[in-house]
Amino acid sequence: MTAKEGREVHALTIDYGQRHRKEIEAAKKVAKHFGVRSHKVLRIDLADIAGSALTDRNVRVPTQRTLEEMGRGIPVTYVPARNTIFLGLALAYGESIDADEIVIAANWQDSSGYPDCRPEFYQAFEEVARLGTKRGVEGRPIKIVTPLIAMTKADIVRKGEELGVPWRLTWSCYLGGEKACGVCDSCQLRLKGFKEAGVKDPLPYARRAQTL
Amino acid sequence: MTAKEGREVHALTIDYGQRHRKEIEAAKKVAKHFGVRSHKVLRIDLADIAGSALTDRNVRVPTQRTLEEMGRGIPVTYVPARNTIFLGLALAYGESIDADEIVIAANWQDSSGYPDCRPEFYQAFEEVARLGTKRGVEGRPIKIVTPLIAMTKADIVRKGEELGVPWRLTWSCYLGGEKACGVCDSCQLRLKGFKEAGVKDPLPYARRAQTL
Repeated sequence: MTAKEGREVHALTIDYGQRHRKEIEAAKKVAKHFGVRSHKVLRIDLADIAGSALTDRNVRVPTQRTLEEMGRGIPVTYVPARNTIFLGLALAYGESIDADEIVIAANWQDSSGYPDCRPEFYQAFEEVARLGTKRGVEGRPIKIVTPLIAMTKADIVRKGEELGVPWRLTWSCYLGGEKACGVCDSCQLRLKGFKEAGVKDPLPYARRAQTL
Repeated sequence: MTAKEGREVHALTIDYGQRHRKEIEAAKKVAKHFGVRSHKVLRIDLADIAGSALTDRNVRVPTQRTLEEMGRGIPVTYVPARNTIFLGLALAYGESIDADEIVIAANWQDSSGYPDCRPEFYQAFEEVARLGTKRGVEGRPIKIVTPLIAMTKADIVRKGEELGVPWRLTWSCYLGGEKACGVCDSCQLRLKGFKEAGVKDPLPYARRAQTL
């Protein structure tokens, strides 16, 4: 949600042992750009309990996959129960600062097929949030809000343009190179979105996938 | 679940910034006693995002409360969304080691009134586990098992006796003294359970509450 809409925004970033620091640095810059009320970075070492190509440098992040290949099941970049943990932490933090909503930018429509990006997952978690907290018992449950869930990447780019998102400060690439790789699933889906929206992505890319 | 029942047990303890180390040390001893397959202690600093008398030494843990007082709503020892976070972490770990069940010793029948100890909370979380994981998508969801949820503390003591629980290695007290305090809600409910079961609690206590 934007501060524009009259909401007081507190940002929470989870440093879960990602193989690179790029997205955490990007989160800090974007939070600062929009002047959020506070931005907290919470450290938890998921690499220790939940192996994934996103936390383990020994697992190769797939690149140059076609959209058809991406459509075939859950990729190795899946981190077990990652969004459940993120939401649990956000719920604890949200309740402690008396927040009314947890907003998470999960995207199902145009995603890599992560189960914890599905709308029904967020509906189920909202029920957990209602039943498992003091706020819920008091009849003021914290809502789980997923504004991007049903949008295509192109829709998201268009919405971002409308809201003045500073794309140059953002990071989507699964790898942590100086430039975005351009060929991992995340880069490809991002570039496809920009292309379809007719917007130029200002981020420098090391390569461009053959498939786009 | 016990190893007796043919299950391979992997224990997970969350070091969430409790005000004392006693229960983590106790968990290690009990895990060792029962010869679990592995025991992992995962560190996450909840004190930073979720204030509670259990994480903040500046908040006093209530003592000498009567059962009637304990029955009046959610106490200051409530940690926002604690069991949601615990289950999220257990789900990640469970999926990464291909576990079939997550067993948690939450107890509602005879508890201090924490919302995340209610049976319906665990049912809702099981749905989250089914929808938010690869295992769920594959039709092999991880079950959430709460064997103690509907038992009284006396029932739990009787069951523990039957299973040979080494009570002297366990810890229930909210405070971290050399001896259990005997007067916090947790000590009182434990002592009441032992008394009703007609079993002697071998743990040394600093005091005994007037109310028992």
